[in-house]
Amino acid sequence: MASKSTIQAVKGTREFYPEEMALRNYLYEKAGAAAKAFGYQEWDAPFLETIDLYAAKSGEELVKEQAFVFNDRSGDPVTLRPELTPSLARMIAARQGQLAFPLRWWSFGPFWRYERPQKGRSREFFQWNIDLLGVSSPEADAELIAIAATFIKSVGLTPEMATIFVNNRRLMDAQFDALGITPENRLAVSGMVDRRPKMSPDAWDTYTLENGLTQPQLDALKKVLGNYDLWQENDELVRLFTTLEALGVKEYVKFDPNIMRGLLYYTGTVFEAFDLSGSVRRAILGGGRYDNLLADVGGDPLSGVGFAMGDVVIGIILQEKGLLPAFVPSPAPVLVTVFDENLWMNSFSLANELRAAGLKVLSYPEPAKLPKQFKFADRMGIRVVTVIGPDEAASGQVTVKNLASGTQETVERTQVAKTIAKILESAA
Amino acid sequence: MASKSTIQAVKGTREFYPEEMALRNYLYEKAGAAAKAFGYQEWDAPFLETIDLYAAKSGEELVKEQAFVFNDRSGDPVTLRPELTPSLARMIAARQGQLAFPLRWWSFGPFWRYERPQKGRSREFFQWNIDLLGVSSPEADAELIAIAATFIKSVGLTPEMATIFVNNRRLMDAQFDALGITPENRLAVSGMVDRRPKMSPDAWDTYTLENGLTQPQLDALKKVLGNYDLWQENDELVRLFTTLEALGVKEYVKFDPNIMRGLLYYTGTVFEAFDLSGSVRRAILGGGRYDNLLADVGGDPLSGVGFAMGDVVIGIILQEKGLLPAFVPSPAPVLVTVFDENLWMNSFSLANELRAAGLKVLSYPEPAKLPKQFKFADRMGIRVVTVIGPDEAASGQVTVKNLASGTQETVERTQVAKTIAKILESAA
Repeated sequence: MASKSTIQAVKGTREFYPEEMALRNYLYEKAGAAAKAFGYQEWDAPFLETIDLYAAKSGEELVKEQAFVFNDRSGDPVTLRPELTPSLARMIAARQGQLAFPLRWWSFGPFWRYERPQKGRSREFFQWNIDLLGVSSPEADAELIAIAATFIKSVGLTPEMATIFVNNRRLMDAQFDALGITPENRLAVSGMVDRRPKMSPDAWDTYTLENGLTQPQLDALKKVLGNYDLWQENDELVRLFTTLEALGVKEYVKFDPNIMRGLLYYTGTVFEAFDLSGSVRRAILGGGRYDNLLADVGGDPLSGVGFAMGDVVIGIILQEKGLLPAFVPSPAPVLVTVFDENLWMNSFSLANELRAAGLKVLSYPEPAKLPKQFKFADRMGIRVVTVIGPDEAASGQVTVKNLASGTQETVERTQVAKTIAKILESAA
Repeated sequence: MASKSTIQAVKGTREFYPEEMALRNYLYEKAGAAAKAFGYQEWDAPFLETIDLYAAKSGEELVKEQAFVFNDRSGDPVTLRPELTPSLARMIAARQGQLAFPLRWWSFGPFWRYERPQKGRSREFFQWNIDLLGVSSPEADAELIAIAATFIKSVGLTPEMATIFVNNRRLMDAQFDALGITPENRLAVSGMVDRRPKMSPDAWDTYTLENGLTQPQLDALKKVLGNYDLWQENDELVRLFTTLEALGVKEYVKFDPNIMRGLLYYTGTVFEAFDLSGSVRRAILGGGRYDNLLADVGGDPLSGVGFAMGDVVIGIILQEKGLLPAFVPSPAPVLVTVFDENLWMNSFSLANELRAAGLKVLSYPEPAKLPKQFKFADRMGIRVVTVIGPDEAASGQVTVKNLASGTQETVERTQVAKTIAKILESAA
């Protein structure tokens, strides 16, 4: 329906009507359940941060081109956070002596990037972040991958639908060394690998040769990127897969030498989960090990591993596959109707009694024709409706109607809560 | 402890370490429980809005002096939302034909105001908002006040500690009319009343006289402000208190002719809850009825009633009174220790088995001396620790230690989850 509203939302921002909010809450709940199953504590950083915080280690593009940066009223430049990891490093560095390590934290909150709004991208988005700090081992990396797999499984995605692909930056550095790629050029070559799926094979060859690779380097690189047994040469990856087996999630994880992760700060294990159901692989979440982040914001060196998942792509995937729970408009399954003006307060008292008994109760707020109130109950997904008409009021009773079965009974007022609870249980 | 971190947080922003996060979540949970008990749906608006949205009806001070306003990369001015009600009006106006009325929505999220940081104020804060739209009656107003009372009671505040004071703008307008205060001057006089508690009686008298009141007007105004029976003259307030009684919350609510609510958009019932325990009354939440908000953003006229509660003041009050639940660092009550390198994967497998049985389990991530792992368990508030040493491994058993009682038993591996569940139940 066309709206005559003249004031519009800001482009790329998110409007959470109750149905969209239910999806956001579903993701928050499932992410939190996976995190809590592994004993992670929930935390959050400020939404506004200084631009200096991001200067050290985020990708340059992220801050210079994509972050919302502005001056506050005192003239100081501030940034709407485009990612969480730098805030994590700052907050841990500030209390490094007081916190108990190993430290396990998770968070789910809003972020902002000035990207072109499109399907799967928005300028405001929510992101799940989860990190383990103070342990530097592939076994710790495996825990994070297991949490990602636990989440993926919990939302109904099978290993055929979604898989976590793993690589190791140290392994790739050694491979790059063997190819004669200098440390300064590692990031550039990683970037080339990241772009490969988006280009035709020939175009990619030409692009890499034009950007500094020799033909023998390109040939050798393609051999590396096609070698799915390479992980056996890397002790960290061998230990990682052993641990993933102990943690019961191996079926969700595969080695892939093409996983690079563009961000500068990853130093060991890197991983990325993809939806495999479409013609294009869509990234669901990604992360890895970072060893230098705290030192960069003034803390003592501390190793960490973590990942992040945006809410938009996973929401689209679950919606496409019909994996989301049905949306029930009203959080209250009971509607207390108001028969007429004389019985209005009688109904409100009943609503109060039912709430005191622990039920969630929607109360029709005014006397209206009963069919109108029942129609509203239908629209809100209500399961039980109560009616107090003159007869019920005179006898101290209440009519309780089960909307699913269409049956109704008239019971003593003291029995209403119990009668409703029984209907709700039987249908659950 | 002094930190050597060189990068600081932005002044007035909020850092939620796990303990602060637990408080924020406690308020979110209690607010949500009160809202859901009355059948309200959760929703959220964008965090960035156009400045035009606030131009119509927010207090001028709020947008012009207190909002964070900046130009995005395309040069368009945007605002970090300083309050929610204008977004509510915009989003409802945009789908007015599709939504089911009466509409009941609640939200809990971040807001920004450029205020001087001080105790009880921050530039980033969280706010609970809750509104009922599509019904214009004192009975609907009473529902919102009942939700506020339900929340206040649920966090352990008695009527002696916190009371909701109610007034009615139409009643006050009539009183102002009788005093010869013109409609154009109503807002100015309301502002004077709002300032009264912060000034000495003499200073306030002088201030009102200097700002346009005559001495007879001042005398009459003081009589009005001291008349706590005035509500009996107002049909809306009589109906409001009758409904509050039916809803079982009358003990939390009092009439107070001094409640004005500065915002322009209130048109009927207004209310504000105060903490009464200190020398200064602190406002916990406030709201009222607004009749014109949707029309202002381009929608069809629609009446609403709602209130908002910031997280900072209520958090301070509950902390002062010791009403907050004890903070338990780990969301997982179980720690699986790692005896040595050989038994590492054995322990990780056990952690996986316990999680599969529905337990939340923290796993010590590496072999370390057991006393160090037990010390960590203490710091994290862990209640049950498991140990698999060489003896247990050889016999296929696990030692389960109850940290509260100090007792331990060694059980078959298949019985571990059941043994732990029993300990957790008995202590709960």
